[in-house]
Amino acid sequence: MNFPIAELTGAMVTSYAQLGGINRLEGANLPSKGAVVEITADLLRLLFPGFYDDRVIESSELKAETALLLDSLAGRLEDQLYKAVRSFDCAEAVKRDPRRAAHELTTDFLRSLPAVRAMLSTDIEAAFLGDPAARNREEVIVAYPGIEAVAVHRLAHELYLREVPFVPRIMSEWSHSRSGMDIHPGARIGPYFFVDHCTGTVIGETAVIGEHVKLYQGVGLVARSLAAGQALRGQKRHPTLEDQVTIYANATIVGGDTVIGAGSTVGANVFLMHSIPANSLVLLDDVRVKIMPKRDRNDASLDFQI
Amino acid sequence: MNFPIAELTGAMVTSYAQLGGINRLEGANLPSKGAVVEITADLLRLLFPGFYDDRVIESSELKAETALLLDSLAGRLEDQLYKAVRSFDCAEAVKRDPRRAAHELTTDFLRSLPAVRAMLSTDIEAAFLGDPAARNREEVIVAYPGIEAVAVHRLAHELYLREVPFVPRIMSEWSHSRSGMDIHPGARIGPYFFVDHCTGTVIGETAVIGEHVKLYQGVGLVARSLAAGQALRGQKRHPTLEDQVTIYANATIVGGDTVIGAGSTVGANVFLMHSIPANSLVLLDDVRVKIMPKRDRNDASLDFQI
Amino acid sequence: MNFPIAELTGAMVTSYAQLGGINRLEGANLPSKGAVVEITADLLRLLFPGFYDDRVIESSELKAETALLLDSLAGRLEDQLYKAVRSFDCAEAVKRDPRRAAHELTTDFLRSLPAVRAMLSTDIEAAFLGDPAARNREEVIVAYPGIEAVAVHRLAHELYLREVPFVPRIMSEWSHSRSGMDIHPGARIGPYFFVDHCTGTVIGETAVIGEHVKLYQGVGLVARSLAAGQALRGQKRHPTLEDQVTIYANATIVGGDTVIGAGSTVGANVFLMHSIPANSLVLLDDVRVKIMPKRDRNDASLDFQI
Repeated sequence: MNFPIAELTGAMVTSYAQLGGINRLEGANLPSKGAVVEITADLLRLLFPGFYDDRVIESSELKAETALLLDSLAGRLEDQLYKAVRSFDCAEAVKRDPRRAAHELTTDFLRSLPAVRAMLSTDIEAAFLGDPAARNREEVIVAYPGIEAVAVHRLAHELYLREVPFVPRIMSEWSHSRSGMDIHPGARIGPYFFVDHCTGTVIGETAVIGEHVKLYQGVGLVARSLAAGQALRGQKRHPTLEDQVTIYANATIVGGDTVIGAGSTVGANVFLMHSIPANSLVLLDDVRVKIMPKRDRNDASLDFQI
Repeated sequence: MNFPIAELTGAMVTSYAQLGGINRLEGANLPSKGAVVEITADLLRLLFPGFYDDRVIESSELKAETALLLDSLAGRLEDQLYKAVRSFDCAEAVKRDPRRAAHELTTDFLRSLPAVRAMLSTDIEAAFLGDPAARNREEVIVAYPGIEAVAVHRLAHELYLREVPFVPRIMSEWSHSRSGMDIHPGARIGPYFFVDHCTGTVIGETAVIGEHVKLYQGVGLVARSLAAGQALRGQKRHPTLEDQVTIYANATIVGGDTVIGAGSTVGANVFLMHSIPANSLVLLDDVRVKIMPKRDRNDASLDFQI
Repeated sequence: MNFPIAELTGAMVTSYAQLGGINRLEGANLPSKGAVVEITADLLRLLFPGFYDDRVIESSELKAETALLLDSLAGRLEDQLYKAVRSFDCAEAVKRDPRRAAHELTTDFLRSLPAVRAMLSTDIEAAFLGDPAARNREEVIVAYPGIEAVAVHRLAHELYLREVPFVPRIMSEWSHSRSGMDIHPGARIGPYFFVDHCTGTVIGETAVIGEHVKLYQGVGLVARSLAAGQALRGQKRHPTLEDQVTIYANATIVGGDTVIGAGSTVGANVFLMHSIPANSLVLLDDVRVKIMPKRDRNDASLDFQI
């Protein structure tokens, strides 16, 4: 049995003509999701040498291997940054010579990697010291979702600071899909940052996070409202967490003016829309839970009361 | 050192004989997860031409490329639908000639793609307008987890409406694994639908969602109780959200009779088991949070009070 | 335009020398993440014959196919276990002859697979009977994230019981990334275990779970505090759930002494830090939600009050 391919094709092509906004035809090519993901994986290999490779890297080969990897990365990254700066709104100087701009952005970004590594070594320390289930630092680097997610964030943030469109967001979405944690590339995060379990944690674009902050799964650092949508772009919309703050699972902190003072702890499931002073403890009130006996274990309808 | 392969094999084969329910031997072949995932990825390429390809598609080639892709897709999809309708309980007419049924289901499904595209263009608009962090529509299509998840849902729902067993659920589970959002293929969702961040959001089989609805991460539209399990199959078990409803992070709405009236907003972490009228604002009560000073920052046992 | 590769390489090599803790150079090779993931996928094929293969397995070939798969698996698993026991703190006997130890661990682990299958057949039964959206057991095995996650957990737990370092954690992190559910390999989980939707559910290392327990998305079985970090290693830090317990979405149960008595039900979003007796129903108090009319649908600033 044959399919009516001509009819089906006609219908699709008509749809492409009518709903132009979701096509991407002719014009400049966008950065490639696949290429950006490969670059990100190679950046992780560069940040943690020997951890992502199946074979041992000998010290004597380290310099040569590093040069080889950097050389291969630089060209591919420049290509993607070139597509990004050519396709989207950028500064005038960038627009005049997008190839040169992409080249300089690439070089400048690669120069930032040692500083990124220095930050990440504090994050690994925080994860190891903070989690009794961690057996050693190697386990933290290889098997903790938070470390990969924070590493990708620190890379994406460097591109965000350099006003690269599109590419940092592809990087963070790849990481989000793997870890379940959604950190916008714009978020400013201090050293010794640890998120345990990660799934469902959301950190908005304008969030500011101090040193030695610890978060758990499902924590939201979110905007007060997105009702005004695009009109709010550029404003500080997400909370500030000062140093030594801990926020437990599924707590939600809302708003750009909200500051969680240094040394404070916010309990699980708390919903907070205003600032709290330093060294506070914020808990759900005890009275909110009702415990009652089930009258009859065999009453199948009982669970319907939940 | 050799392994006792004969002994180990004997033990496994004995287990296969004893616990038959979780084998799949002889008999008809199930649809292949891998094949269904590849088909889904190709359907996304068809819906958003030029976005998932590394090279530019010229307008002059668009028709030929579309025909080629449709031709390749149709045959593969028919094969999987044939396996699905042959393997599971289906209508009598389908059972009599499963190959013809699969062919007709495939053609009919492919005819629905322009309508799916029309819906998706409203979803992209809603995502772009609703999120100040979105720089442009291209970023929304390529880097927002919600768009891919809603696109896969709208495809899976078309198969669900045609009573295709198994395949829509494989599609939705693939999407769930990538976005963290679990939308059952049965859920009926109106245009201009946007879910931000997505991780942990669950939308049940019989949920009904109006136009311009916005959800956040961790929102659950769930059944009142699954204590009765299979006995409830086919009943409306999940909530209805009318037009212009917004539900913030980690709120849970329960039950098949529960209706959230048009224009209402439900705050984060709210747990709701009954209907609310149109234009309501539902918040957690303020009193539920206790803020107290930590007496001594050096008292390591303090955090144990959390 | 050339990149300053020599300068960039120098900076990275200096960073490697300064921040040694996050390199992995020379010395023993760690287990490979990629190899462990492939082994885990093959173990799933062994547990559910015919479900992960695109072609039908005939009964007559079953024995030969099983022997072939076991033979291929055993050698690869031994290699990874060898790397694991050689690289990390292990018992003296293991350290003296790590190759023999890896061989014996592998054989012993493979002998446990029929028992793992017996447990998994109870989990599939619980999932099918407990979810009215499930059409048949095949759908549960192929398309339910919970089944794969629980299967990987039961495998990882067998390695954890045998004190294998590193490898079980790689397995559980792979599963976490796919399902969104983070079960530590140490958790002890009884038969007939079902988690619906899975995303964001966290089960800690020392949690103990009875028979016929049902959890939903976002449930946390977590430690009272990790403020003391590594000092707590080895203690029971996570809750115990007795038989027939159900815990709804986003509830958090805290602490190693906390026991949820048999037959109890804990409602969504509940936060619980103490034990409850058998057959209890634990709910959020009704008064905690405030419902008010929105004064003016056109007042765009209103949602800011959320």
